[in-house]
Amino acid sequence: MTEPNDREEVEVTRFSSGAPAEVTDEIAREEPLEVRLNGITLVYLMRLPGDDVELAAGFCLSEGLITCYEQIDMVRYCTDGEGPSLSDEPGAPGNLAEITAHDVGESGRFEGRVVRTGCGGADLAGDVDLEGIRVESGAVFDPAILLKVPGLLEDGQPVFRKTGGTHGAGVFDSSGEMLVVREDVGRHNAVDKALGHLLLKGMSFDDKGLVLSGRLSYEMVLKAARAGVPLICSVSAPTSLGVQVGRLTGVTLVGFLRGDTFNVYSGPQRLGAA
Amino acid sequence: MTEPNDREEVEVTRFSSGAPAEVTDEIAREEPLEVRLNGITLVYLMRLPGDDVELAAGFCLSEGLITCYEQIDMVRYCTDGEGPSLSDEPGAPGNLAEITAHDVGESGRFEGRVVRTGCGGADLAGDVDLEGIRVESGAVFDPAILLKVPGLLEDGQPVFRKTGGTHGAGVFDSSGEMLVVREDVGRHNAVDKALGHLLLKGMSFDDKGLVLSGRLSYEMVLKAARAGVPLICSVSAPTSLGVQVGRLTGVTLVGFLRGDTFNVYSGPQRLGAA
Repeated sequence: MTEPNDREEVEVTRFSSGAPAEVTDEIAREEPLEVRLNGITLVYLMRLPGDDVELAAGFCLSEGLITCYEQIDMVRYCTDGEGPSLSDEPGAPGNLAEITAHDVGESGRFEGRVVRTGCGGADLAGDVDLEGIRVESGAVFDPAILLKVPGLLEDGQPVFRKTGGTHGAGVFDSSGEMLVVREDVGRHNAVDKALGHLLLKGMSFDDKGLVLSGRLSYEMVLKAARAGVPLICSVSAPTSLGVQVGRLTGVTLVGFLRGDTFNVYSGPQRLGAA
Repeated sequence: MTEPNDREEVEVTRFSSGAPAEVTDEIAREEPLEVRLNGITLVYLMRLPGDDVELAAGFCLSEGLITCYEQIDMVRYCTDGEGPSLSDEPGAPGNLAEITAHDVGESGRFEGRVVRTGCGGADLAGDVDLEGIRVESGAVFDPAILLKVPGLLEDGQPVFRKTGGTHGAGVFDSSGEMLVVREDVGRHNAVDKALGHLLLKGMSFDDKGLVLSGRLSYEMVLKAARAGVPLICSVSAPTSLGVQVGRLTGVTLVGFLRGDTFNVYSGPQRLGAA
């Protein structure tokens, strides 16, 4: 699911009942990835290595720079010394994902200024024109199917099981099949990887749901809306602006999806509850 | 601890055992705050309203723009229509925190480009000169005292108890006294609010510890290092780059602080385990 370079072993001092002992622990890797669109550096993402082309493609989609697969002309991942590196050695592997696309949105708000542990939303608050984003999908999701989604997400997170250091995101269809699960040290990156995976397969999100391990904040709901995902759900809580974005863009927002219970904060018609 | 505008009530459809019901739910507020330093807009932060001046001051400290209280000449919070607003109505309250300071660091990497749900690290990876950041404190923390810190953090998070939608951060001293706990929809903001609170009291971090509810990633450890905090701990996991920053800057990194056990990833001498 992710590259084998997603974890590393470190020597740690473990205190147990007051007594220290030297042990080996596995931790999730975090490294910078440079994302270029049409030769321009958009962003440096602090991410779990692996699925980097999918991450870059998903980022372009969920940040509104492209809207569909057909716009992408080329995707490329380079480790030949280009991009940021954690080593000063000449020829050390770099980390660069490059996308060529046509008819792209305005990218001036990025310009390579941001490093983020998977944090999206490099917009000025006032610049986000939510009026232009509307998810019209008539997809309906059976509440009984939704209840199974958090378990399927958990099953797809091997790095979390070993390190406890990652967030997860998955995309499922209305029959309850989990189409992809991705992990990352940043919750925004996990979403972008999952979306990017399906985008690069040419799939539409019109009848899909997105599930997250983290909270439903402004940026996460906006990412779903821009990608055209009609439903986003989480075991965790929404924020007020997350709910507002859901209501304004027509995305169904489901929070506290635990056991046999969940809350619908916007778009309840997609759960058969008009 | 936070302003009363930190939560809002929303009408939701709650599904329980398959049956929908209309109920009222409390969710954490998320609103943009513009942070200005010496008249220049640094950043728009998506944050839980409240403690905004502390957030702005803490942000300037943990992002390396100022290093001490003495540099701050003035702090100001405005709701008189300046700054971003969630309403189009004329005279609607804005959200602006302004700081005047002298001898500040280079702020060109910000320039008001970023909105983040509490996500720090608006640096280019290659631009972070960790060699210049070194926490030399000789403070020592008793392992038995450290074990009590997560409980004290939890006690200081009323918004989390009501909404499930916030992260927490606290600063404690080596006697185990929790000096401040702050909450936010973004984990970076929670740290900046807690640091800013003590900074504005003119306190030094040389003998303090920082506790987080979230993971110990690159940006969080870097924030601690820049503020001069010698120890950072969490119930959660570190990332590889978080450990690397801890080791390079001399910050003691404690993860998986649960029950009577924890792991020390860097700086074990501060726990009496050389």
